[in-house]
Amino acid sequence: MADFFESRRSIRRYENRDVSEQLLNHLLGKAFRASNTGNMQVYSVVVTRSAEKKEALSPLHFNQPMIKQAPVVLTFCADFHRFSQWCELSDANPGYDNFLSFYTASVDAMLVAQNFAALAEQAGLGIYFLGTTNYNAQGIIDVLGLPELVFPVTTITLGYPAETPDQTDRLPLEAVVHNEVYNRGQDVKRLYAEKESLSENQAFVRDNNKTSLAQVFTDIRYTKENNELFSKSLLEAIRKQGYKF
Amino acid sequence: MADFFESRRSIRRYENRDVSEQLLNHLLGKAFRASNTGNMQVYSVVVTRSAEKKEALSPLHFNQPMIKQAPVVLTFCADFHRFSQWCELSDANPGYDNFLSFYTASVDAMLVAQNFAALAEQAGLGIYFLGTTNYNAQGIIDVLGLPELVFPVTTITLGYPAETPDQTDRLPLEAVVHNEVYNRGQDVKRLYAEKESLSENQAFVRDNNKTSLAQVFTDIRYTKENNELFSKSLLEAIRKQGYKF
Repeated sequence: MADFFESRRSIRRYENRDVSEQLLNHLLGKAFRASNTGNMQVYSVVVTRSAEKKEALSPLHFNQPMIKQAPVVLTFCADFHRFSQWCELSDANPGYDNFLSFYTASVDAMLVAQNFAALAEQAGLGIYFLGTTNYNAQGIIDVLGLPELVFPVTTITLGYPAETPDQTDRLPLEAVVHNEVYNRGQDVKRLYAEKESLSENQAFVRDNNKTSLAQVFTDIRYTKENNELFSKSLLEAIRKQGYKF
Repeated sequence: MADFFESRRSIRRYENRDVSEQLLNHLLGKAFRASNTGNMQVYSVVVTRSAEKKEALSPLHFNQPMIKQAPVVLTFCADFHRFSQWCELSDANPGYDNFLSFYTASVDAMLVAQNFAALAEQAGLGIYFLGTTNYNAQGIIDVLGLPELVFPVTTITLGYPAETPDQTDRLPLEAVVHNEVYNRGQDVKRLYAEKESLSENQAFVRDNNKTSLAQVFTDIRYTKENNELFSKSLLEAIRKQGYKF
């Protein structure tokens, strides 16, 4: 069964075929068995199926076509709202409007999201993670009506695969795994040599008129300017949801 | 195979039996096939096997016995250090010392951590996630020698299970799953009724001389005072690693 993990690829194109509510809930229920902090389950999942909500979410994800094309869009949220409500209804004074709690709930939401992704793939579905969730969080909060202390962490599009893309490359294990202490003496150029040599990556460099693959990242895909702009809006959105820091 | 997900439980006690480097690397290699942002793989894993390093990590995890008892401790880190080094060696100007990049790398580290956890469990190993990583991050940074832009996000202890604990409870699905928009009208007390009724949770309340289960969380396990204290040290540690916000 480990083959499911080894052979996986992210899926951007889906069959015109629904994912039943029964199957979705079955997979979500299993995913919720993931480890979580203190068994507080400080996460929520918002399911988007309606054309109207997909239309509203689409520009917030920079019009990536998966949002409208996938039968199901799942927004995984850090959620201390429900837990805090429970405290207030139980004569207990919640203290979860802080950065630690935000980060804890983010961690738990991610564990559940990845657990769901693995389960969905083993059930024959395809998934795609949308990192754009962190760029336009406030817009997503508004569209999904997220209350105080609920924050969108990641988005998964879900459906039956209509493509079998090539697997993307990965760094050699020694680039990522360190024994006992972080290896500060890595030969970083060597570790990235295979990545740089791949024809699709060389095409990226050529097509963008750059002199190195790294420049495609720094100058085009993930620029300092955009990162700083989105850092500002991300922090604003987190604080607006009531996490104080 | 989905049974592995359904029947899983976190394991705190391990057999006196090593996990081979070969098996560990095999599982890590598969785990790194998880989705990640822009295929940058901005994460690292530090493997702790030595008694000396376990001794140093143990108090940072509040002396939870898993650290010393497990053959392997894995600290999953957000890591923009290696990627930034590569940029600098490639005539590219990295701009990843910001909050968005920190959060992105945290997300990627968590996806890999959970993917690894599922893989390890399917291979017959037991795992435990240590949320304490976020409480004493600076100490962990020092022990593992983490350079700038590397930040510990979560820790997994790993070994062959020497126990089969009961599964912990989970909230009903309807507490966590929302359709189209967040359901602000939830009957929260009802959703937590089953949890409150469990004999082990009632024992928690009694043993701590509290009047509700929620008070066990707010007054003892996750207090406002501690959350605010650890928020401060967490933020300090993130900024000290070079993420500016």
